[in-house]
Amino acid sequence: MLQPITVRFEPDGIDVSAEAPALVSVLAHDAGLPLHLPCAGKGTCGKCSVTVLSGSVADPTEAELEALSAEDLARGVRLACQTHVTGDAVIEVPPETRVIGTKSLNGDLVRSVALEPNVQQIPVTLEKPKLEDQRSDFDRLAEALEPVVPKIYACPPALQRLPASLREGDFDVVAGVVGKRLVDIHSGTRQPPTLGIAVDIGTTTIVCYVVDLLTGKQLGTVAAYNEQGRHGADVISRIEYCNNNDGGLEELRGLVLDTINGAIGGALKQCDARPQDVYEVTVVGNTVMNHLFMGLDPRYVALAPYVPVSSRAQELRPVDAGIEMHPRGNVYCLPIMAGFVGADTVGVILATDMLRRDHPVLAVDIGTNGELALWTGEKLMVTSCAAGPAFEGAQIEHGMRAAPGAIERIAAVNGGIEIKTIDDVDAIGICGSGLFDAMAVVLDLGVVDASGRFVNGDLPEEMPEDVRERIVGEGNDRRFIFSDLNGDRPVCLCQRDVRELQLAKGAVRAAIELLLKYSDLEPDDLGEVLLAGAFGNYIDPRSALRMGMLPDVPLERIKGVGNAAGAGALLALSSMQERATAEKLAAEAEHIELSRRPDFQTAFMETMMFP
Amino acid sequence: MLQPITVRFEPDGIDVSAEAPALVSVLAHDAGLPLHLPCAGKGTCGKCSVTVLSGSVADPTEAELEALSAEDLARGVRLACQTHVTGDAVIEVPPETRVIGTKSLNGDLVRSVALEPNVQQIPVTLEKPKLEDQRSDFDRLAEALEPVVPKIYACPPALQRLPASLREGDFDVVAGVVGKRLVDIHSGTRQPPTLGIAVDIGTTTIVCYVVDLLTGKQLGTVAAYNEQGRHGADVISRIEYCNNNDGGLEELRGLVLDTINGAIGGALKQCDARPQDVYEVTVVGNTVMNHLFMGLDPRYVALAPYVPVSSRAQELRPVDAGIEMHPRGNVYCLPIMAGFVGADTVGVILATDMLRRDHPVLAVDIGTNGELALWTGEKLMVTSCAAGPAFEGAQIEHGMRAAPGAIERIAAVNGGIEIKTIDDVDAIGICGSGLFDAMAVVLDLGVVDASGRFVNGDLPEEMPEDVRERIVGEGNDRRFIFSDLNGDRPVCLCQRDVRELQLAKGAVRAAIELLLKYSDLEPDDLGEVLLAGAFGNYIDPRSALRMGMLPDVPLERIKGVGNAAGAGALLALSSMQERATAEKLAAEAEHIELSRRPDFQTAFMETMMFP
Repeated sequence: MLQPITVRFEPDGIDVSAEAPALVSVLAHDAGLPLHLPCAGKGTCGKCSVTVLSGSVADPTEAELEALSAEDLARGVRLACQTHVTGDAVIEVPPETRVIGTKSLNGDLVRSVALEPNVQQIPVTLEKPKLEDQRSDFDRLAEALEPVVPKIYACPPALQRLPASLREGDFDVVAGVVGKRLVDIHSGTRQPPTLGIAVDIGTTTIVCYVVDLLTGKQLGTVAAYNEQGRHGADVISRIEYCNNNDGGLEELRGLVLDTINGAIGGALKQCDARPQDVYEVTVVGNTVMNHLFMGLDPRYVALAPYVPVSSRAQELRPVDAGIEMHPRGNVYCLPIMAGFVGADTVGVILATDMLRRDHPVLAVDIGTNGELALWTGEKLMVTSCAAGPAFEGAQIEHGMRAAPGAIERIAAVNGGIEIKTIDDVDAIGICGSGLFDAMAVVLDLGVVDASGRFVNGDLPEEMPEDVRERIVGEGNDRRFIFSDLNGDRPVCLCQRDVRELQLAKGAVRAAIELLLKYSDLEPDDLGEVLLAGAFGNYIDPRSALRMGMLPDVPLERIKGVGNAAGAGALLALSSMQERATAEKLAAEAEHIELSRRPDFQTAFMETMMFP
Repeated sequence: MLQPITVRFEPDGIDVSAEAPALVSVLAHDAGLPLHLPCAGKGTCGKCSVTVLSGSVADPTEAELEALSAEDLARGVRLACQTHVTGDAVIEVPPETRVIGTKSLNGDLVRSVALEPNVQQIPVTLEKPKLEDQRSDFDRLAEALEPVVPKIYACPPALQRLPASLREGDFDVVAGVVGKRLVDIHSGTRQPPTLGIAVDIGTTTIVCYVVDLLTGKQLGTVAAYNEQGRHGADVISRIEYCNNNDGGLEELRGLVLDTINGAIGGALKQCDARPQDVYEVTVVGNTVMNHLFMGLDPRYVALAPYVPVSSRAQELRPVDAGIEMHPRGNVYCLPIMAGFVGADTVGVILATDMLRRDHPVLAVDIGTNGELALWTGEKLMVTSCAAGPAFEGAQIEHGMRAAPGAIERIAAVNGGIEIKTIDDVDAIGICGSGLFDAMAVVLDLGVVDASGRFVNGDLPEEMPEDVRERIVGEGNDRRFIFSDLNGDRPVCLCQRDVRELQLAKGAVRAAIELLLKYSDLEPDDLGEVLLAGAFGNYIDPRSALRMGMLPDVPLERIKGVGNAAGAGALLALSSMQERATAEKLAAEAEHIELSRRPDFQTAFMETMMFP
């Protein structure tokens, strides 16, 4: 007979109502505390241990008797995937059992990793000093923490507070530890608020994700316009600003820091927290953003042979990084892979977990610059290509950023044209996703041929009237109107726009072709094609295929993966194992420099054509 | 036939004139560059390698052919102890072959260690980037330095300067490295001035020793009065000042930093150097000085169970330490061993090398507090005792610090008394060394008996007239005049003075007796008794024996070892191996807490008596 019960999860203090008997892992999920279940609930991996603090639960299963020691069982340790609650109970979920997922960033590719951050708040009860035990305060603490944090060392301010904190708490304290550094000491047994922030520095937009590092819970997200934008929209103009202005580097660095600190401030306000609650910040960005953030001169990134100042992961003190946070916290910049393959791509590779697939996977992140990663099933190859800003609407006659009035979707339906604008207001331009659709439509309708030329002279008779009347102008001034023909301001695609898009998509496709060629793969070998970034979120994969920007793979293999770069920063914040994976993959990736490949130009000539 | 030649030693640029043939090790010694010769010049250890850059030298000896590879020989590498120069020559002495000695601090116990500091200035020529080699600037540098500094990482400012420095020097640079941290990058091949400073923080006096870390040469020494003195002469009154005054700890910390920074400033002026030339500072001091230097509350050191805040070695950034030096340098505080056995005693043990003796050795460092270390031949035991300030002249009627007019030597000669005062001016008081002699004299003359009492009532007939007339007063007011009987101000030793000295020497001797007892040793087993500090420099060992402060060992086994604590700081500055030894010995020492030993009181009752 089912019986109504209440189960409380600690230390969160979340109550869940259910009917007994009920599985702990299911109840935890209902409580908003998804658990790490690597063996999918078979009870074989022993990773989902929780502690039953009080209440009624069923006897241990065979799997539990196998996985847990008698000592653990005696302490109430159980496997969440095996244990049925039979009455009211209080259950503690330790951090290592919790999941930090990228789900909220990305509906498709859920990844769960065990929470294992670089920051810990460790409650510890110390033996009191006596004449027979004259260990120093720090030795006493360090020896108690040795099993959890071997070789701990102390920041001077933590050491300075140590004697008073120990004695105020009667030798019960919470040790705040970042890496192997004791940074804080709180008397008593209560863990202080402990937040982490993942920062994705885009050339245009900066996004900050706030995480509770004790529970793995995402507390908030804030996006802000990168203030550097006032000195150029793309990375090359930012580099030029540094080169041409005394103090330009410092100015751009100050602007990105202003943006980040402002965004963090806003995010903290959302969750009622203070800067000193933030113990760690992880950072991704393209190579130039990464350099400007760290105050490193980016000029050589743009000059052959395109050498960055540093490609390794970098740890900075908050004061050196210029981030307003806990003064003894840590700022971790993910590694980069090359001058134009940045930490953002490392984040994408990490977040999509593509290196664990047994089939080849291609990840494509397109902005002004295209960053590409190919997992062949055995090795990781990365490259970049200058896509130009056309996909972002720059250098396109009616191109614009994704803002109200931008045409974001276009379809040819029953011989007519249907458009959708952002906020459904009158069209005033076309943004990136609209440009892809526009290009697909003019190709499908025969308005533009495979070479990229608008139909010449008289229009073919078989072309529907609805289409014919949208084609205006002659020769190189020919254009196709997408907006309402009765509107005040026609929004068109012109011959020059097509050329720009052709160059951009050709460069991306040529890079993909060469990656495939160098790894002896055919397009059809690609089990997945992952589209990252804003680009991946909004463009219609059918249009990308129709334009020939992507190789010819079945549509269902193409997946948008959202802001995977930011998700990567979040994973590196939540799990030291993920951080190690990021460093390893960045070090092991093979970077293909296309500018020295004689076959790139050849490939480009072909890939500029439309299919 | 002997032939006059000139040999230049690089990179010092020192020329030496000699007659050929001459041995390189001898020439180097003449140039003021003593070399590390562990095998004493037999050519077997291969440690004294130098490089002959140009000039005439004899063919390699058998020993050299054995010790050096063909490749090394081809590059001009030779052993200094084997190679005879036969004409003018230029010879480079690498840092690892140089010696840093404690000779200048201590005439008796010369120790030489190979120069192997934590700071390096490494000249390196890098391959230039090209399209086939797009490694980042830092990867390029780190990989070149990998054999010398594995796992190097960069300070942000060093990274910020890296691209410009590399290109200004056309990829010839000198990498400034502290530990595993790249802190500086200089273009070109010239090593910048690179100094280290060893600081001995005494309760009364602070001494700074300046060393050239590239050559091991000592450049200067400055001593300064510890400005903390205004808040009490001894460690207990400093602790009380912290306890009783808001901000007292910060104030005392500020005062010691002012003293140290002032002394460093003076020392640097002597050798025409700047604060940013100082890359590392090592610090010794007693436990309380160590705590005040680091801003750690010392109050629990003085309260049972006498627990320090931290006893481990500590590394501080200059900004945290408050030292005016290279901002990315390092401040290294040697470890302490207990509440009253500090880093100064670690320094003494290190500098005297006592742990390498195969006979038992006792080291005694006496100030207000006695710190004692006994090497049994197998293990190290340390303890402390409250000697009281009597030995420093405090609480002694005519006691004074060692200053002009202080009686520093007393002898009974032919029935009369001979005294020597500092600067040979009229006596105005007695300093520590004088007190030891005074006590020995009154005991020898029978003026004071074994129980510490002045002769009572009428003086014995057999006492020489010269002595009798120096005894004045009656009963507890009896006293012995040491100064010129015709002088204006008689300088005496009184009954109360004797009692103070008795208590002080009794405590030291009781501690020694217990160390011997716990290690099953007899006094005669002690192969050496080392007296450290100012105390060891000035007191007459015969007087210490006569008073019974030291156990009865042959006089020649008692040795003053000068400022061995400072020498220890210097060794830890010059050699990472010595630094590791210091940490190991501090961790392994067995600390004997006398305050809990019931047998201490018993021993003390006996040792208060005079022999």
